[in-house]
Amino acid sequence: MKVSELSRRTGVQVPLIKYYLREGMLPPGRATAANQADYGEDHVRRLRLIRTLVGTRGLSAGATKEILDAITAGQEDLHQVLGIVLGVRPAKGTDHEPSPDPDPAPEASGSAPEGLAEAHSLIGEMGWDVSPGNPATRTVAEVLAALDHLGAGIDWRSLLPYARLADDMAELDLRQLDGKGDPLAQAERAVLVTVLLEPALLALRRLAQEDKSSRLFGGARTTGTDEA
Amino acid sequence: MKVSELSRRTGVQVPLIKYYLREGMLPPGRATAANQADYGEDHVRRLRLIRTLVGTRGLSAGATKEILDAITAGQEDLHQVLGIVLGVRPAKGTDHEPSPDPDPAPEASGSAPEGLAEAHSLIGEMGWDVSPGNPATRTVAEVLAALDHLGAGIDWRSLLPYARLADDMAELDLRQLDGKGDPLAQAERAVLVTVLLEPALLALRRLAQEDKSSRLFGGARTTGTDEA
Repeated sequence: MKVSELSRRTGVQVPLIKYYLREGMLPPGRATAANQADYGEDHVRRLRLIRTLVGTRGLSAGATKEILDAITAGQEDLHQVLGIVLGVRPAKGTDHEPSPDPDPAPEASGSAPEGLAEAHSLIGEMGWDVSPGNPATRTVAEVLAALDHLGAGIDWRSLLPYARLADDMAELDLRQLDGKGDPLAQAERAVLVTVLLEPALLALRRLAQEDKSSRLFGGARTTGTDEA
Repeated sequence: MKVSELSRRTGVQVPLIKYYLREGMLPPGRATAANQADYGEDHVRRLRLIRTLVGTRGLSAGATKEILDAITAGQEDLHQVLGIVLGVRPAKGTDHEPSPDPDPAPEASGSAPEGLAEAHSLIGEMGWDVSPGNPATRTVAEVLAALDHLGAGIDWRSLLPYARLADDMAELDLRQLDGKGDPLAQAERAVLVTVLLEPALLALRRLAQEDKSSRLFGGARTTGTDEA
């Protein structure tokens, strides 16, 4: 199909498609004339994935390209793709760690960051088999350190029941991936289930929090805006 | 205490403390001389909270101020404070909705956004009592719409098991809040448990995903970086 048709099919304006082509986020079409190319269904799917990563997740073009490249490189090995999407290991053919995390943790410079021992205690207690490079460990450490600084009385043991629920969620996640479709479809699905679902999961928790708050503390409410 | 002591106690540099004072994020101290003021324990706590909101959550100074103002205004009513933190209802004394969400959903302009009917189906099936203004509903709708566009075969019914786990998490959350300390301490705790815990929860899920991926798909792995 022509670029105009690709635009119609995906709802992405032609100038933006050309930008994605220039940036290498979208592979070039098959050249049919000096200034014309033919695009296929893979372009439609990839363009929709780009729009979703940029739009829903607010990822930069650079971060999106890194994820897309990683998926394309590792798409025949689901564990590999998941590792890339989770930021655990570099993609084949690249010599640097991709950073799918929009808020990457600062690199350690020598000394172990605060909270890391506690994060490892939590991971150990859960019996999780995770790589030393998984950036999520550092995120947990940072939050534990912040909670400690604030004197919140919330330590790694307080997070254990949350870790068990996270474990149940991961079981659900992986069940959605196992043996569904061709490798590219699986890779896309891995991105959807791992990365794109994140804002929805936090939103579901916030909805449930309001519900519980209403039931537990609702007697003391002073505004009636949620009773409409 | 003097501002130098406040700086020492909190690890926040004096120029940054002065910036927070200018921006109204930190209430002024008690004036002791023309150019000198006395600060108390409340300043220490509030400064630590600011640092945590800005540092761990990456919130802007403006968004942080809005949350702090909201907490201070509504601190005697835990349901009210939670509502403010969740972005459900405006703070007392303000005539606009606060936006604690760092990635706020665009406002509807007339027509209902895609996915909203599905989000309401999910909320209805869960029996959640949530206000029409809860921005999390729109987030769920947006993710459902994005998944639908991508032909992921993931609809609101697929999210039901996740919603049940989110419900369990909210039960844990609220259990951490009930009747702990004075109103300001409760308000701070509400922020910690609702907002600050979010990156940790996503990180725990990512760790659990790597663990499950390793167990389920690990046989096909081509790199050994996580076997150290």
